[in-house]
Amino acid sequence: MGEKRNKFMALIFILVFMSFSSGWSQIAATISEDSESCLSCHSTFNSAIISDWEKSLHSKVMPVEALKKEILKRRVSAQKLPEEISSIVVGCAECHTMNPEKHKDSFEHNGFKVHTVVTPEDCGICHPEEKEEYGQNLMSYAYINLNDNPVYRDLINSINGIQTFDEGKIFFKTADDKTNSESCYYCHGTEVRVVGLNTRETPLGEMEFPVLAGWPNQGVGRMNPDGSMGSCSSCHTRHSFSIEMARKSYTCSECHKGPDVPAYKVYEVSKHGNIFSAMNEEWDFTSVPWIAGVNFTSPTCATCHSSLIADKNDEVIIERTHRMNDRLWWRIFGLVYAHPHPASANTSIIKNKSGLNLPTELSGEPVAEYLINEKEQSVRRENMQKVCLGCHSVQWVENQFLRLENTIQTTNEMTLTATKILVTAWDKGAASGLPHNSSIFDEAIEKKWVEQWLFYANSVRFASAMAGADYGVFANGRWYMSRNIQEMKDWLEFKLKGQSKKK
Amino acid sequence: MGEKRNKFMALIFILVFMSFSSGWSQIAATISEDSESCLSCHSTFNSAIISDWEKSLHSKVMPVEALKKEILKRRVSAQKLPEEISSIVVGCAECHTMNPEKHKDSFEHNGFKVHTVVTPEDCGICHPEEKEEYGQNLMSYAYINLNDNPVYRDLINSINGIQTFDEGKIFFKTADDKTNSESCYYCHGTEVRVVGLNTRETPLGEMEFPVLAGWPNQGVGRMNPDGSMGSCSSCHTRHSFSIEMARKSYTCSECHKGPDVPAYKVYEVSKHGNIFSAMNEEWDFTSVPWIAGVNFTSPTCATCHSSLIADKNDEVIIERTHRMNDRLWWRIFGLVYAHPHPASANTSIIKNKSGLNLPTELSGEPVAEYLINEKEQSVRRENMQKVCLGCHSVQWVENQFLRLENTIQTTNEMTLTATKILVTAWDKGAASGLPHNSSIFDEAIEKKWVEQWLFYANSVRFASAMAGADYGVFANGRWYMSRNIQEMKDWLEFKLKGQSKKK
Amino acid sequence: MGEKRNKFMALIFILVFMSFSSGWSQIAATISEDSESCLSCHSTFNSAIISDWEKSLHSKVMPVEALKKEILKRRVSAQKLPEEISSIVVGCAECHTMNPEKHKDSFEHNGFKVHTVVTPEDCGICHPEEKEEYGQNLMSYAYINLNDNPVYRDLINSINGIQTFDEGKIFFKTADDKTNSESCYYCHGTEVRVVGLNTRETPLGEMEFPVLAGWPNQGVGRMNPDGSMGSCSSCHTRHSFSIEMARKSYTCSECHKGPDVPAYKVYEVSKHGNIFSAMNEEWDFTSVPWIAGVNFTSPTCATCHSSLIADKNDEVIIERTHRMNDRLWWRIFGLVYAHPHPASANTSIIKNKSGLNLPTELSGEPVAEYLINEKEQSVRRENMQKVCLGCHSVQWVENQFLRLENTIQTTNEMTLTATKILVTAWDKGAASGLPHNSSIFDEAIEKKWVEQWLFYANSVRFASAMAGADYGVFANGRWYMSRNIQEMKDWLEFKLKGQSKKK
Repeated sequence: MGEKRNKFMALIFILVFMSFSSGWSQIAATISEDSESCLSCHSTFNSAIISDWEKSLHSKVMPVEALKKEILKRRVSAQKLPEEISSIVVGCAECHTMNPEKHKDSFEHNGFKVHTVVTPEDCGICHPEEKEEYGQNLMSYAYINLNDNPVYRDLINSINGIQTFDEGKIFFKTADDKTNSESCYYCHGTEVRVVGLNTRETPLGEMEFPVLAGWPNQGVGRMNPDGSMGSCSSCHTRHSFSIEMARKSYTCSECHKGPDVPAYKVYEVSKHGNIFSAMNEEWDFTSVPWIAGVNFTSPTCATCHSSLIADKNDEVIIERTHRMNDRLWWRIFGLVYAHPHPASANTSIIKNKSGLNLPTELSGEPVAEYLINEKEQSVRRENMQKVCLGCHSVQWVENQFLRLENTIQTTNEMTLTATKILVTAWDKGAASGLPHNSSIFDEAIEKKWVEQWLFYANSVRFASAMAGADYGVFANGRWYMSRNIQEMKDWLEFKLKGQSKKK
Repeated sequence: MGEKRNKFMALIFILVFMSFSSGWSQIAATISEDSESCLSCHSTFNSAIISDWEKSLHSKVMPVEALKKEILKRRVSAQKLPEEISSIVVGCAECHTMNPEKHKDSFEHNGFKVHTVVTPEDCGICHPEEKEEYGQNLMSYAYINLNDNPVYRDLINSINGIQTFDEGKIFFKTADDKTNSESCYYCHGTEVRVVGLNTRETPLGEMEFPVLAGWPNQGVGRMNPDGSMGSCSSCHTRHSFSIEMARKSYTCSECHKGPDVPAYKVYEVSKHGNIFSAMNEEWDFTSVPWIAGVNFTSPTCATCHSSLIADKNDEVIIERTHRMNDRLWWRIFGLVYAHPHPASANTSIIKNKSGLNLPTELSGEPVAEYLINEKEQSVRRENMQKVCLGCHSVQWVENQFLRLENTIQTTNEMTLTATKILVTAWDKGAASGLPHNSSIFDEAIEKKWVEQWLFYANSVRFASAMAGADYGVFANGRWYMSRNIQEMKDWLEFKLKGQSKKK
Repeated sequence: MGEKRNKFMALIFILVFMSFSSGWSQIAATISEDSESCLSCHSTFNSAIISDWEKSLHSKVMPVEALKKEILKRRVSAQKLPEEISSIVVGCAECHTMNPEKHKDSFEHNGFKVHTVVTPEDCGICHPEEKEEYGQNLMSYAYINLNDNPVYRDLINSINGIQTFDEGKIFFKTADDKTNSESCYYCHGTEVRVVGLNTRETPLGEMEFPVLAGWPNQGVGRMNPDGSMGSCSSCHTRHSFSIEMARKSYTCSECHKGPDVPAYKVYEVSKHGNIFSAMNEEWDFTSVPWIAGVNFTSPTCATCHSSLIADKNDEVIIERTHRMNDRLWWRIFGLVYAHPHPASANTSIIKNKSGLNLPTELSGEPVAEYLINEKEQSVRRENMQKVCLGCHSVQWVENQFLRLENTIQTTNEMTLTATKILVTAWDKGAASGLPHNSSIFDEAIEKKWVEQWLFYANSVRFASAMAGADYGVFANGRWYMSRNIQEMKDWLEFKLKGQSKKK
C-alpha cells in the first residue's frame, strides 16, 4: 500500500505541474468532413457503434502523429501515408469509403461510395506490414484451406448434413449454407458476395443496399468483396480496435476453445494462464513495445505468437509478426498426425500418395515436399524459444521442448493404432470408407477415429506445448486417447459378431 | 493516456470545488430502530452478512430519496411507499420482518416477528413492477413446471434415483429429497416449508427457531412460506443486492452453464462474451439506464433479456423487463423440439395428444393451443432485434436471425431422426418405453435420445442464437448430434443381434 | 458514486497531509551484496524474472521489519531470524544460495554455491510453521502417494502407456518418463535429481551447470535435491510470490479443474464462485488477516481451506493452516469410494484385505485402521463450519452439511453398483482383471468403472460440498453416473452375446 500511495502522490504532483506549465499538449483530433457527415446521422442510428469508436485510438490520433513515434513504439507500419488521411483521425469514411473501385460491395449512400465490409486491403493503407504478413499466414487461407479440400468438405458434410432414418437405414443430406456459415465458416471465414440490391424503408426515406451473401462474418480467412482474404476485425474487434483486446487470450479463444483446438482451455489451466487470470488487472496491455516482466508477468497468446516483446532495458526479445507461422515449427492440431508446418499458407494444394489432400499418409509419414524442412523448423523453434528465455533458464526451456517432441511422437503412435483398427474395420466390411470410395467420416467407428486425433491427440499436444497438464490427462487427453482404442476394438468385435457379410 | 490524464485532472478540480462549496450533500442514512436492534447482536454473529449489506445501496439510500430520481434513472418502481419505510434505509428488519402475517416461517425473536426467507412479496413493497413481471415469468414457475409434470418427474428419478445391480438386472429407486434439493431443485427452487420448531443453545442463551424443509435454497421458482413463488436473490445476491452482479453473466451462469442449457458457455466463446471478458473492467455496470456503447461495448445476458437500455442520447432502446419471455419468441432448450414460446408461464398444464405433458408431439408437431402464435412471436422477435440494432445494421441482424430460424428447423429434423430410432427400438422390444408404459428415460438408448435434444440440439441452437460457433460444432454441438445418430443405430443393431425376443 | 467521491477526496487530503508531515516513512530496502551480484548479470539475461521479483514483497520488505508487525498481521512465522538475512530484503542469493550443504543441485557459479531448485526447506527459514504444516499435508506426499502405490502405477500405465494394434489385439507399453512428467507428475511432483554436468556457452563464456532430471516441475509433492518434499511455488508463484495470487482460485485450478477433481469447475458455477467472478475486482486480496465481508464477500479456495480469516471486529474466525487436512473430514475424490480422511499424509502405506493399496475394500468398506475416526471427523467438520458460519446461519450450514453426508452415501452406492457389474464381467470372463492378476484399468468396461467414481461420483460430491448444482447434474455428474450403469450393463450383454468362452 505504501508503494501505491507513493505512486499516487507522485502522479498528483506531476499532474498539477503539467496543468500549470504548457497546458494540455495533445493536438486536437480533426475529423474529416466525410466522417462528420456519417456521424451526423449515425450518432442517432446504431449510435453504440459510434460510442465504441470514440474509445478507439483511431478517433483520437491522427496518422501523422502516429508516424512521429520512435520506431519501437510505432503502431503504424506505413513509411508514408496518403496525404488526404494523414492529418485527420481515422473515422467512418476513412475505412468505409477506402478503395471504392475494388469493392464490389460499394454502394451509393447519401453521395458517398460506401462499403460495408472493411478488409485487410483497407487497413493496409496504414498497416501494410501487418497486411503483408497476415496474407502469408495460414489464417488468411482458412476459407480456401477448408473449402477447396475435398477431404474437409466430406468432414463438414458428415457433421453438418442432416441425417434421416428410414427402414433401419441412415441417409445423409449435404450441409446447407446457413448452417455452414454459422459453424465451420464462422471461424474460417465465409465468402462474402453481393447477390443483389434491396430497397429498404429507413428513417431517412427509401434507400438501396447491397444484399450480401455470407454476411455477417469476421472469420480469419473471409473472402472479401474486394478480392482480399481475411478480416483484421477477427482479433482487432470493431469499432474500438483495442490492442488490449487483441492481446488478451479471450479474443483468440473465440476460435481456439473447442476440443478440436483447445489452446485456450489448456492456457486457462496452465501456470501461465493462472497467472494471467489472477494478476492481469495490474498489467498494461497497451504498451508498445510490450515489456516482459514489467507490463505483464505471464504470456498471453499474443506474447508467444505475435507481439513485439522487449525487456525492461528496451532490448527487443522478439519482433512483431502477423505471420504466426514464423514461430511455429510443428503443426500439432487439425490433422490426422502432427507434422512439420506446411511450407505454403495454401494447404489445399497438398496431396498425399493416396490422392487425399492431407499432409501425411494414413501411416503418419509426412508428405515432405509440401512441408518445411528441419532447418526451417529449427529457425522457428528458436524464435519461439527466444520468448521463453525472457523468463526461463536455458535448461528449463530445453527440457520443456524435449517433452513436446516426445509427445508429438507418442501421440502420433496412438493415432496410428486407431488408424489400424479403422483400416481393419474397412477391410472386413464392418464399415465402409476409403477402399469403398465412401466417406471416411460418417460412421461411428470413423467418428471415433476422428476423435482420436482431432480431439485427444491434439489436446495432449497442446497440453504438452503449453504445460497445461490437467487438461491433457483427464479433461480431454490421454485418458480418452487410451480409452478410445479399447472402445474402437470392442466396437469392431460387436460389429463382426455373428455376421459373415456386411454392407 | 493523455485523455485519461485530462479526465483525472478534471475530476480533481471538480472534487476540490465541491469540497469548498456546499459540503458533501448526501443526506445521512438513517437506520431504523428495529434494524439497529438486529445489528447490535449480528454485528458479532455472522458479521460478514452485515459487512456485505453495508456495501449495498439498501444501506445507504432511503427509499424516499430513491423516489426523487427522474423516471429513467429510478431503481424503485413503487409510485408511493409505506411511510414507515420511506425515510429510513432498507436494513435487516425492513425485509426480515415485512408481512409477518403472511409468513408461516415468521417466529418470535427477541421481541420481533422475524422470518428467514425473504420473498418477492417482501421485495415487491418497493419494487412492485419487477415482482409483477417476474410472477409472469417462466422462471417463477420453475418449481411447479418441474414438479407437477409427470414426464419431468420421471426424468428426475431416472437421473437421481439409485440403481442397484442384482442377478444381471438393474433396479431403480425413487430419488430422495436431499438429492433433489441439491440438484434439479437447486436452480428450479425447492418448496420451503416449516416442519417444526427447534430449540438451540446460542451465545445469548436458549432460543427457538423454525425448522425449514427445503432450506437453504435460492432457486428461481422457490415455493416460499408466504405462498409466493421465486427468489429475487437468485440473481440479486444477498446482502449487497448489487445491480453490477445481476448484470454480469456470471450470475446467470449459475444455472445456465451445463450442457442442457449452455447459454453461458456459448456466450463465453462468442464475440460478445470475448469483448466482455477482455474489456469489462472499464465498463460501468451500475448506471441506470444502461447506455449502450458508453457504459458497455458488448451485451451481457441482462442487456438482451432484461435491462433498460438507452443510447448516448438517452433515447430508450428497450424498456426494462423482469418477464424475460417478453423478448423470447422460440423456446430453444429443455424440450424435445424447439417450439414457439408457451403462452402461460405455467407449463405443467400443457398436454399433447399422447397425453404427455409436453409442448410438442413426439413427431415435433407443436401443441399450438398452449403456445404463442406467429403474431406474438413477431412482437417478441422485434423486441430482441431492437437491442441488436443498437450496435448492428439491419442486414446484419436480419441475416443473423434467419440463420437461427434455419437452425431451429435443422436441429428439430435431427431430433426427429433420433426419435425414429428410439421408437423402432421400442417397437422391436430392444428397449421398453412409451408403448410399454415404462420410463422413457432410463435405458441407454433412451439416454442417447435425451442427449440428442437436451444437450446437442439445444447447444447448437444456443450457439446459433448467440453466434458462439466454436461451442456449437465440436464442444457440444453438431459433431455429437451427428455422431449420436450413428451410435443409436449401432446400439440398436448390437441389441437386436442374434435375438428373436427381448424383455 | 457519491460514496466513491467521498473516499477519493478523503484520500487526497490524507495524502497531502502526509506529504507535508513526516515525509515517506518507508525504510529503504537494502539488497545484499550477493544478490546485487546476481542482479548485475541477470538484469540483462532472463530479465523478466527480475522485473517480476521487483513486484514482490520480498524485494521491498526486510524480514526484520516483517517481524515487527503485530502477530495477527504477521506474514512470517519465524520467532527469530538468522542475523545475516534479517536486515536485507529477500533477493536472489537469499533463496538460491540457502542451505548449500543440503542441496545436491548446488553448483559453483561465479564464486557462489547456487542451486536452481528452491525448496520448502529454504522458504522455511522465515516461514517455519508453514513448512511444518505443509509437510504433514497430503499434498507434500503427492509424489510418494502416487509413485509408491502399485494400484496407481497400474492406472498411470493404462492411461499413459502406448497401445499398439496387431492381428486384432491390443498391446500395452509402459509409460515413459517424459510423458509422466508432463501429465500425472506435473501436479503430483516429479523426482528432481542431478544426473550429470553440462558445459554450455553463455554470453559470459563457458559455464558448467548441473543436468536435472524431472525438471522443470513445481508439483505439490516434488522430491527435491535437498531431500525435502513439495514446492511452495506451486501456489506462491515465482518470483512475485503474491499472496493475492495464492488466494485466488485460479491458482488451485491448475491442478483441480479436470473431471477427476473438478473443484474449480464446481466453484465456478456455485454462488460463491459467481460472486467472486462478478465482484472480486473490488476485493482486497492482500490483507492479513483476511476480513470476511470486508476484504471479500465470498470465499475462494484459500478462504475455506487455508487462510487466516477474521471478522470486521478482528475476531479470528479460523486460524491459518497449510495442512489442508485440518479442515477435511471426508476424502471425496480420487478413490473408488468416499471415505474418512487418511490419518497419515503418506497413503502409500495403506493396504486393504485384498492386498490393494486402497483405503476401502472393493465393497466400499473403509480400511478403518488407516483412516481418522469419527471424533476426529467431527473436529475437522467443525473447523470447516466455522468458516461457513461467518456468513451463514446455523440451520443453513447444518442442512448444507447434511446434504453432503447423504450424497456421500448415495454416490458410494452408485459406485458399488458399477463395481458389481465389473466383477460380474471379470467372473464371466468378459474382461480380465483382479481374479486374473491382470490390470484393473485397461479394458473398456474397466475404464467405464473408473469413470463412475473418478469422474461422476467425485463430481457429484464436489457439487454437493460446494453447492455447484449445475455441474453435478448434467455437466459431469448424476446424468452420467446413471447413464454409465446402463452402458456398463449393455456392454456386458454385447460382450457375452453368442459366446461361450472368452479370453
